[in-house]
Amino acid sequence: MTKDSIGVVGAGLVGCLTALAFSAKGYKVKLFDLRKDPRLDQDQKSLRSINLAVSDRGIRALEAVDAKMAERILQHVIPMKGRMIHDASGTKQELQIYGLFGESIKCLLDELDATDVEVFFKHKLTAVQNIAGEAKPVLTFITQNGENTDFDFDFVIGTDGAHSQFRYQMQKGMRMDFSQKYIDMQYMELSIPPVKEAKPDSGARFSIDPNHLHIWPRKDYMLIALANGDGSFTSTFFSPWKTIDSISSADEFLAFFRKSFPDAYNLIGEEGLKYAYDHQPRGSLMQVSVSPYASPNNRAIILGDAAHSMVPFYGQGMNCGFEDVHVLTQLLEESDGDLRSAFAKYNSARKADIDAICKLALDNYYEMSTKVTDPFYLLRKKVDYYLGKYANDVLFPWVPMYSMISFRGDIRYSEAVAREKRQTKVLNWIQYVTLGGIAAYGVARAAHAFDKWNR
Amino acid sequence: MTKDSIGVVGAGLVGCLTALAFSAKGYKVKLFDLRKDPRLDQDQKSLRSINLAVSDRGIRALEAVDAKMAERILQHVIPMKGRMIHDASGTKQELQIYGLFGESIKCLLDELDATDVEVFFKHKLTAVQNIAGEAKPVLTFITQNGENTDFDFDFVIGTDGAHSQFRYQMQKGMRMDFSQKYIDMQYMELSIPPVKEAKPDSGARFSIDPNHLHIWPRKDYMLIALANGDGSFTSTFFSPWKTIDSISSADEFLAFFRKSFPDAYNLIGEEGLKYAYDHQPRGSLMQVSVSPYASPNNRAIILGDAAHSMVPFYGQGMNCGFEDVHVLTQLLEESDGDLRSAFAKYNSARKADIDAICKLALDNYYEMSTKVTDPFYLLRKKVDYYLGKYANDVLFPWVPMYSMISFRGDIRYSEAVAREKRQTKVLNWIQYVTLGGIAAYGVARAAHAFDKWNR
Repeated sequence: MTKDSIGVVGAGLVGCLTALAFSAKGYKVKLFDLRKDPRLDQDQKSLRSINLAVSDRGIRALEAVDAKMAERILQHVIPMKGRMIHDASGTKQELQIYGLFGESIKCLLDELDATDVEVFFKHKLTAVQNIAGEAKPVLTFITQNGENTDFDFDFVIGTDGAHSQFRYQMQKGMRMDFSQKYIDMQYMELSIPPVKEAKPDSGARFSIDPNHLHIWPRKDYMLIALANGDGSFTSTFFSPWKTIDSISSADEFLAFFRKSFPDAYNLIGEEGLKYAYDHQPRGSLMQVSVSPYASPNNRAIILGDAAHSMVPFYGQGMNCGFEDVHVLTQLLEESDGDLRSAFAKYNSARKADIDAICKLALDNYYEMSTKVTDPFYLLRKKVDYYLGKYANDVLFPWVPMYSMISFRGDIRYSEAVAREKRQTKVLNWIQYVTLGGIAAYGVARAAHAFDKWNR
Repeated sequence: MTKDSIGVVGAGLVGCLTALAFSAKGYKVKLFDLRKDPRLDQDQKSLRSINLAVSDRGIRALEAVDAKMAERILQHVIPMKGRMIHDASGTKQELQIYGLFGESIKCLLDELDATDVEVFFKHKLTAVQNIAGEAKPVLTFITQNGENTDFDFDFVIGTDGAHSQFRYQMQKGMRMDFSQKYIDMQYMELSIPPVKEAKPDSGARFSIDPNHLHIWPRKDYMLIALANGDGSFTSTFFSPWKTIDSISSADEFLAFFRKSFPDAYNLIGEEGLKYAYDHQPRGSLMQVSVSPYASPNNRAIILGDAAHSMVPFYGQGMNCGFEDVHVLTQLLEESDGDLRSAFAKYNSARKADIDAICKLALDNYYEMSTKVTDPFYLLRKKVDYYLGKYANDVLFPWVPMYSMISFRGDIRYSEAVAREKRQTKVLNWIQYVTLGGIAAYGVARAAHAFDKWNR
């Protein structure tokens, strides 16, 4: 029996995993990308911005395709022991197990070379046809020399990111609900260079601990840094648009940075900051939501950021995209290898979870920008953490929200939200009982004092 | 002093009114459209589908541009005395003052001929540049012979409808929140032909009363008909997608129609129904929401359906678009002729009202599809109507919602929603007090009966 053919558009992390997953299941896969092969990019600047943390869901999805492959991919990754919080005065740590995903796109492309997946770079998608009706879908591309080429497939999958051309083409042929919502925050990429004169035997090429996600939280803005394999760190500066728009020169930017992030100022260096201010674009952050994900004939589908671009504040964008692939292949198994049936089931199987994590990511942005200085909030977070550590399974399995999302890929995003609701109720009771206790104690003390005074 | 130049893209109803309004204020206006001049269209099929009811808001907006012009436009319009409801068995009437807007686009284009507005047909927009920063905006079009032409303006306005290319181009240069949401309903255009052998002196070319909006409401679907100047009626059949998808031949469609709309079946005729089933496209209905409407440099803006495509169930789409023009010119006056300042103020002046009417239109769809058979709902509607008629100004000015929206252009959409909330509270009280009274009466009767029985 000949297996069906699949065309995948977008050779990013999710697209590569999609191609690997369906190739492993025996499908004939072709993978297309607009850009040139990133492995041919000399200075590899284009890879810098995809430093992402892979957590439990992402790892499970990699392992589902091939456990040996997952091992090979993850050996190139810089393991992270936790987050390091740099507050205004100095530094303190807060440990959490993490994995860091570096320039792994190259590893995934190398993995593809070992399969019979055909990869086509510099192919710009211009049409997705036959997504309704019985005819097989056709993808049209413009190649570098300006020629139009058609490919027909049994199934086509769009994994071409937040500004997906595949999705835009699908919208022409079906009724797809769509929304994009910007948040009032820009980001700018900075770079912490490797240590110049590291002793060869110490291996200390990194100027700060590479095995932590570094965070410089401030009330209105934030800086983060993630290690690269070459000893440098990719750092990202987040701020409201008005903050960056009110800065009108590189000198003002330097002054702002020195005041807000004194240690990072020294790590990045004046030259690097000046370069970033003058040359780096200011990125915008938006949430994209779509429904449904599959075409009327269940022969086309979108996965990853093309289907659910989320703001980066829960670190789940890529993990959710990997999980998309995992869920789709699981549905394929449940459907005894009938991919049309898997596409048909995907929407109801996945929508609630995608909506849940998109909302969480957005809520986390509001939480970070408003609640982080609220002492009640911080106290509740602490109680939540200790209940997870010491009181798990007393009332019901207690896992703090962040842990459910990041370390417990066995718990669906939507289930995590439902469990969090129960846990919140308990936290509310604890808060009320505690406040009530304090109030009762206060009244008793006052009564006692009154009693003494009256005697 | 030379006035600024304005480029308007989209020569539909709202685009024409925009061009007329700014030309009347002395601006140098150019108006562009993708299509050919509709006045050159012999069979004028393209004009059929724009039969729309103009109500108070639309009329006010026309009058604000030029009272004489409004008079000229409205004299071509078929006046409507109300709605005629065709229920399953026969017919009954429910009177309401209405105006019907027919092929008025031609009248508006004729009005433009009398001004110095330059109109360019067959110009396809391909780019909107300089919507941020200080440079003046540039519009790029492809003309029929495949040439690219650039036009620069002080201001540009997009009025090119729900699938606006102008909006799509703006989105490339700014952070615009955007959503499109489909409802599960299709529409199909049908035509009721004129009476063939009308007596010349009677003038009775119309097979049903032309001065009413005809409605055939059914539980899940609906038919409407509006008169055209030539004696025909444009009729629209609305149904859930599954209804039309479950019909697989013209014969089945005829059988369905004969059963559901016996009188309309005869009016349209078998041939017309068969033609429509075989050749008319099934339209989809969606809601488009956008924010903000103006560009960062306040030199580009979108009005009408480009900014707020709504479902047609409140008959306010065009009226709201006309009101957009009215509000913008009012803001221009408030800003002493500074159009940049008017663009800047438009978003906060208009967003709440646009959101309100879009939501009302959608709510009305749900209301029509679910509540219309609920006796409590119908009773409340009746009480609401009589309170408006007899109890106005007893508690506070009482105007039923439908009247505020359709006949009271002096009440903002958002204000209408706020007033409706107060009125709903009173209706709730009336309902509870009535039910309470009935319950109390019941208890009293039961007690009395018990008393008698016990004696």
